[in-house]
Amino acid sequence: MSTPDAIVTPDRAGSPAEVRARFRAGLRTTTSGMAPGFVQANLIAVPSEHAYDVLLYATRNPKACPLLDVTEPGSAQTVLGDVDLRTDLPGYRIYENGALAGEVGDASDVWRDDLVCFLIGCSFTFETALVRAGVPVRHIDSGRNVPMYRTDIATRAAGRMSGPMVVSMRAIPAGLVGRAVEVTAQFPTMHGTPVHIGDPTAIGIEALDVPDYGDAPIVEDGDVPVFWACGVTPQAAVEQAAFPFALAHVPGQMLVTDLPEPGGYHA
Amino acid sequence: MSTPDAIVTPDRAGSPAEVRARFRAGLRTTTSGMAPGFVQANLIAVPSEHAYDVLLYATRNPKACPLLDVTEPGSAQTVLGDVDLRTDLPGYRIYENGALAGEVGDASDVWRDDLVCFLIGCSFTFETALVRAGVPVRHIDSGRNVPMYRTDIATRAAGRMSGPMVVSMRAIPAGLVGRAVEVTAQFPTMHGTPVHIGDPTAIGIEALDVPDYGDAPIVEDGDVPVFWACGVTPQAAVEQAAFPFALAHVPGQMLVTDLPEPGGYHA
Repeated sequence: MSTPDAIVTPDRAGSPAEVRARFRAGLRTTTSGMAPGFVQANLIAVPSEHAYDVLLYATRNPKACPLLDVTEPGSAQTVLGDVDLRTDLPGYRIYENGALAGEVGDASDVWRDDLVCFLIGCSFTFETALVRAGVPVRHIDSGRNVPMYRTDIATRAAGRMSGPMVVSMRAIPAGLVGRAVEVTAQFPTMHGTPVHIGDPTAIGIEALDVPDYGDAPIVEDGDVPVFWACGVTPQAAVEQAAFPFALAHVPGQMLVTDLPEPGGYHA
Repeated sequence: MSTPDAIVTPDRAGSPAEVRARFRAGLRTTTSGMAPGFVQANLIAVPSEHAYDVLLYATRNPKACPLLDVTEPGSAQTVLGDVDLRTDLPGYRIYENGALAGEVGDASDVWRDDLVCFLIGCSFTFETALVRAGVPVRHIDSGRNVPMYRTDIATRAAGRMSGPMVVSMRAIPAGLVGRAVEVTAQFPTMHGTPVHIGDPTAIGIEALDVPDYGDAPIVEDGDVPVFWACGVTPQAAVEQAAFPFALAHVPGQMLVTDLPEPGGYHA
């Protein structure tokens, strides 16, 4: 059985401020298992003229897009910690007219004065609690990023924002699935309970071994695939919206905040 | 002890559609205790140019402003039921430049093509569950509106929206306060658990007998005043914002929806 110690290997240890300093210095890695006990967050940022669409989309899809903070236009600061949003994530994705235009480790050069950042709860936040409850988290044990998939679950549209729900998957021993649900129910602002348990094809996932984002899954005998709504969902919607510009985190390379779990506006 | 039957007196009985028909025909009354088992909602509506401020304000203050629906500009329809938002509430308040400019029973004449309606969970929704759990609801037993107060609890500002939290108060026998908290915790989109229990002066309420909205309270010997965040809060913020136009419900005269409790985006 995994223990909390198992996820704090020397190269991934450190407080939120310490791991963010490493990202500022250039480290590119998934943040899964880092700074256990603290909230991690997804980023989606758009020019202010499109902010209402994104905010309404998050409101209408709270399971995928539980909002932790919305910044003032142009600001790189957040109530979630002593953070510079331009530099403190491991990696950023740049979207232009709905297409992925590049990935960078520092977003300072593409920052805009009218950029509004939406910070959205991340399921990495509840992984420490899963491990403490005796639920193994296979991608942490194997040093990988979590696998993520586009589903055929439609989100509720808002203005130009629409598209499929993206989910993260954890393969969990059948006898522990109930416990995993119970634990994650305590994290409503980190996607909460799963949106699907069992057959991937029922939600439009044809090849579990080939995720759309993150790393291939580790599935052991007797595991059941369990799917949680994922904060990459608005990246899929931004692609469909085809805004001239948008900025996001690289899936799995999250903002590590100073906020103790479970966190969020409702906490 | 009160029972669910006690709150369905003949003149207040009926399904959501039936009571809305009475409001369309001119009935003006508090909706407390009406259509038990169904979600009730607060209304705040502003022209679309101010909608981002209101949406962000609600996002930043989810305890007072749990969003159930946000309409398309000009639309009088909502996902919450077979409703005409222009006519189906008992009473409406019209705000002009931040001042109360009138109250009407039908908002058709002041409706605008650019009006965005925000429908916010209402604590009336959990009163049926309180009564079922054996917690008396004094204002229902006495046929009154709930008392509501402006507090000195500051909300988080968003654009031009800022101001004090408004709360509703229920006087509850000391031995049942714990149960009331337990019951209302099951209604996170209807303001959830209380924001304050006990001394009114600690949250800036100097005269419990003189509420700012609704009717004077009934407080019996051994009762403790218990305060829940209230969906009238954005009306106080709209007064401070001084938008040229805003529309709201008359406090206590709610939209009765077709949505079974507990309801809300998170349900």
